[in-house]
Amino acid sequence: MAFGWIDEQARARGRAGLVRTLRPRPADSPLLDLASNDYLGLARHPEVTEGAAEAARRWGGGATGSRLVTGTTELHDELERELAAFCGFEAALVFSSGYAANLAAITALAPHGSLIVSDAGNHASLIDGCRLARGTTQVVGHADPEAVRKALETGGGPAVVVSDTVFSVDGDAAPLSELAQVCREFGAGLVVDDAHGLGVLGDGGRGAPYAAGLAGAPHAEYPEYPEDIVVTVTLSKSLGSQGGAVLGPARVIDHLVNAARTFIFDTGLAPAATGAALAALRLLRREPERAARAREVAAELHARLTASGLEAVRPDAAVVSVRAPSPERAVRWAADCRTAGLAVGCFRPPSVPDGISRLRLTARADLTGGQLDRAVRVIGETRP
Amino acid sequence: MAFGWIDEQARARGRAGLVRTLRPRPADSPLLDLASNDYLGLARHPEVTEGAAEAARRWGGGATGSRLVTGTTELHDELERELAAFCGFEAALVFSSGYAANLAAITALAPHGSLIVSDAGNHASLIDGCRLARGTTQVVGHADPEAVRKALETGGGPAVVVSDTVFSVDGDAAPLSELAQVCREFGAGLVVDDAHGLGVLGDGGRGAPYAAGLAGAPHAEYPEYPEDIVVTVTLSKSLGSQGGAVLGPARVIDHLVNAARTFIFDTGLAPAATGAALAALRLLRREPERAARAREVAAELHARLTASGLEAVRPDAAVVSVRAPSPERAVRWAADCRTAGLAVGCFRPPSVPDGISRLRLTARADLTGGQLDRAVRVIGETRP
Repeated sequence: MAFGWIDEQARARGRAGLVRTLRPRPADSPLLDLASNDYLGLARHPEVTEGAAEAARRWGGGATGSRLVTGTTELHDELERELAAFCGFEAALVFSSGYAANLAAITALAPHGSLIVSDAGNHASLIDGCRLARGTTQVVGHADPEAVRKALETGGGPAVVVSDTVFSVDGDAAPLSELAQVCREFGAGLVVDDAHGLGVLGDGGRGAPYAAGLAGAPHAEYPEYPEDIVVTVTLSKSLGSQGGAVLGPARVIDHLVNAARTFIFDTGLAPAATGAALAALRLLRREPERAARAREVAAELHARLTASGLEAVRPDAAVVSVRAPSPERAVRWAADCRTAGLAVGCFRPPSVPDGISRLRLTARADLTGGQLDRAVRVIGETRP
Repeated sequence: MAFGWIDEQARARGRAGLVRTLRPRPADSPLLDLASNDYLGLARHPEVTEGAAEAARRWGGGATGSRLVTGTTELHDELERELAAFCGFEAALVFSSGYAANLAAITALAPHGSLIVSDAGNHASLIDGCRLARGTTQVVGHADPEAVRKALETGGGPAVVVSDTVFSVDGDAAPLSELAQVCREFGAGLVVDDAHGLGVLGDGGRGAPYAAGLAGAPHAEYPEYPEDIVVTVTLSKSLGSQGGAVLGPARVIDHLVNAARTFIFDTGLAPAATGAALAALRLLRREPERAARAREVAAELHARLTASGLEAVRPDAAVVSVRAPSPERAVRWAADCRTAGLAVGCFRPPSVPDGISRLRLTARADLTGGQLDRAVRVIGETRP
């Protein structure tokens, strides 16, 4: 029978306690959310939801075609210009997802004969980008600029270094300045995914590259936009919408328009998602303190969990990761939190590069002191 | 300099007349649209745009996380159940794009050691799925069940046959019944992309597999849902929204939930897109004549273009393809149409598998007789 082999895989997953199931949530969940990536609490903000609603009414339910045919509206153009300016890059290109943006950036910038140097802790979408690209990938140790240097020494042709800025699982940051320095020495491009940095790191949430001094409007000291750095972001995390974008030099963006398959052969981002992201971006520009608040909540959460004896990774952005002794006990821990009214993420094999299971907590900027108290108490009381 | 090589590629594109640029469109374009994939004219339908707006208000601007964490709402569940029932499959799984759905279906169903048999005319997203999958891909001649049979004879382990149901470029249909027959002989799975069939083909727009008798609710003669066929669809074409879905046996869908990277590591589809697609689906169920009307418009368009001496491919769905003598003249032809108030698609290398440039026309169900007259007249008057 066709697909017969999947039944054996399903049984193996069952035996290993690794079966995943979907849990549809109601519109108004009674759970306290420390599981989503809604870092700034903007997904339900009225300006953001109205941005979506208004865009759907004005522009339609969908973009109706590829961005190269009918799928580019003036709304897409507006978002791209404002996003690029905010993050400090010359140009931007919006995609239907961050996943698609990562596939596009890597495949279009790592042609046949090129070398891709990829951090061992990179997100699945970056890994899939490396797999799809025509270049040769060398995976290097996590957050290790010296390993990157050694890898670049082996290459002759064009090279790109690929890394998350903030790693999703543990919430730790990449050594961006050092990576940029090594890349410049070798004339290599740097492609970083700022999915978990945008809205949280940098002045007013301008992102990790901005925080590292690698982006920004041209000024006396740096008269040009960065020429050798390409950044991908998502619109679905701190901006509370859906979609992704690539930011970089205009010539790189033009290249993507002409060469990136996940741009050319995908339908454009829906107007509602475009409008929601634009509304969130404008809100963030007006209320830049939201970014700092997310970082403060993360630091507070980490300090209190650590004080209670839990093993938590010091957060570089808004993700706080807490170690669990095994996949089964991580699942049980998360389930017990849920029973006590708290939604937490539970990362376990095969979704974690190092095989270590953990709870993953999101330090939303809009968590109140009381909510933080409750979260810390529940996590402590349910610990395995 | 990093990315220096892209400048040479840009110059080569310029010399070959293959530079693509984005043309942001206003909300109310004066152009008559025969370029989009809005086959049923639902993207601007008030029920669809209100479906998007209402969902954004009730559920938020984004899904806030992976479908496995916080990104599955009851709205996603509702869409999945109604979509599966409508198309005649046991279960469905919604993705942020059709591209992501195709990557998921192929990578999760073609493991290491498996054989993938892929039609030479397949869409880029199917090709990228084959490239990403661990199985070995054999590309076979376009719409050729005998070539598929020969390829399957070479395989030993699990095998999947991958094809569009309606090919995007020429609008021709795959020999679905024959493919299913060959697959059954060899115990191979059949994975078909019904992006251009859903909403257009089959009773009330239930899609190409339904039209071919390969899907449908269990009844006396076929007491079970199809077990060896998996269908991917988009929500961004006839349903006027954004996103994609995989339809198939519940055990295959469960497998995707556990194994498909573009499902597990992507943010869930935004509520607005989910709501828009659901509204469009319900509208289509209530007004099934829209599907037949799209096919009639296509037949009429083809007949009249052919009568005027143009070389057009007989449409199997709602896409009408007209040959152009060269890429440059195709671009010029499309530009002249645009000047005369008509938006048409222009497909040319490298977006076409056979290297032939053409105009691509969409026979929207809501085109009036007067609009059809105007379109035929403009295309004829501007011919190269």
